[in-house]
Amino acid sequence: MPQVPFDDRGLAYGDGIFETVLMRAGKPVLWPYHYARLARGCTRLNIPLPPIEQLHATWQEGSAAELEVLKLILTRGSGGRGYALPDVAAPRLLSRRTPFVANAERWQKGVSVRICQLRLGFQPLLAGIKHLNRLENVLARQEWRDSAIAEGLLADADENVVEATSMNVFWQQAGALFTPSLERCGVAGTLRAALLDEGVVREAILPLNALPTVERLWVANSVQGVWPVRVLLNESGSELRSWPLAEHDRLQALGHRLLGYLPLSR
Amino acid sequence: MPQVPFDDRGLAYGDGIFETVLMRAGKPVLWPYHYARLARGCTRLNIPLPPIEQLHATWQEGSAAELEVLKLILTRGSGGRGYALPDVAAPRLLSRRTPFVANAERWQKGVSVRICQLRLGFQPLLAGIKHLNRLENVLARQEWRDSAIAEGLLADADENVVEATSMNVFWQQAGALFTPSLERCGVAGTLRAALLDEGVVREAILPLNALPTVERLWVANSVQGVWPVRVLLNESGSELRSWPLAEHDRLQALGHRLLGYLPLSR
Repeated sequence: MPQVPFDDRGLAYGDGIFETVLMRAGKPVLWPYHYARLARGCTRLNIPLPPIEQLHATWQEGSAAELEVLKLILTRGSGGRGYALPDVAAPRLLSRRTPFVANAERWQKGVSVRICQLRLGFQPLLAGIKHLNRLENVLARQEWRDSAIAEGLLADADENVVEATSMNVFWQQAGALFTPSLERCGVAGTLRAALLDEGVVREAILPLNALPTVERLWVANSVQGVWPVRVLLNESGSELRSWPLAEHDRLQALGHRLLGYLPLSR
Repeated sequence: MPQVPFDDRGLAYGDGIFETVLMRAGKPVLWPYHYARLARGCTRLNIPLPPIEQLHATWQEGSAAELEVLKLILTRGSGGRGYALPDVAAPRLLSRRTPFVANAERWQKGVSVRICQLRLGFQPLLAGIKHLNRLENVLARQEWRDSAIAEGLLADADENVVEATSMNVFWQQAGALFTPSLERCGVAGTLRAALLDEGVVREAILPLNALPTVERLWVANSVQGVWPVRVLLNESGSELRSWPLAEHDRLQALGHRLLGYLPLSR
């Protein structure tokens, strides 16, 4: 496993970004979106983007497994006096591949999710990118242990829904599909970006107290795919609302087409 | 130099805390305050506090240098599925000592500081502790390169002064000494804690636009000591206010007594 030294700024300050990429038969899925987010993160943090060849090299060392997850970590590297940047940037790109089995039962039967008590703080300078400062997610994920609860939903300090701890949120209202805008906090997922590009999903604001009124609800990311939400629990674990499984799940069908999770689960 | 593996959660998520301790002739200065903050960080993040013997052992391996800085990093260790905690906690404690020379000129002549454009976001669950999610500080520190500017002052999203990028802020008004309260963001420094305990400093709110009206201004931490601010620059680098050096600097005298920086600089 790769290592980083004590003085790596990724370790010292979370000064870096990461990507978690689904590898299907040795090829990265939605790579243009991962690359775009990586580049956006580099611009935002002022870290030089590694040469494309160096990134592509991380795809090579894989196994014969049909599905793997490739995790990339890009740190600013070592050096600098305290928070001040090093005079010469020498970013560190690390990668690791692990086998992956998609949880098809969650595609098929849907999931229970719980609203987290933690409220995300606002930091527009860091919103959207997948940086290494993820303590809010770690704290939120500590709010439940029941493995029957698949995800925790996060709202911001203004009580608007933002995301799930490691997935994006989608909902249907009046037949149309939406996802929270992520201008002030949250991670803009690559599957979310692809769905926005397809034009089937639009950004909107969803107040937390309107969550039980939506027609349908999903959590999704580019590795796990699209999970329909069947049961919504409040911050204390009490049921707020349940939804039946849809006859035809348009978001899942499109999402799974983008991810290559075909034939469809149901 | 110690290393951590790719899957260490300190690297992956900034899931950990750190301390930067002044070592004087092999002994840690203000240790009870560092220990208390470490313990508070562990409680807040739900990381087991290392045994006191393990912490004390980090003092041992030092050199003969009169002054050193001991940096401790405590991560949650490896493991867990994504943000979810590992079933068995195995935190990783790392330490490193480096020689240190205090910048006595800054004690004696005071410093110029600049107001940063970045506004700190609010996250009460993380406020006060010295966790590894420090991208706000890194971004703020990128706002200037002129080495004649010693620090950047940070305000929060409500436009109240919070701290400097790596120091706490103190001011005098009507003869009394104050420091910003850090309930919603910022790092509660150990020298600040000791000064509060001494009863000479009190917590208060300082709106950014009132900053030029204070009688005196300082930035300080437990390693560098107490720097009187001579010149205050705005977000564009223009001078907002200057202060003469005080005949007798009460805050510096007390701070340097606590840190063992005696005889006094002036």
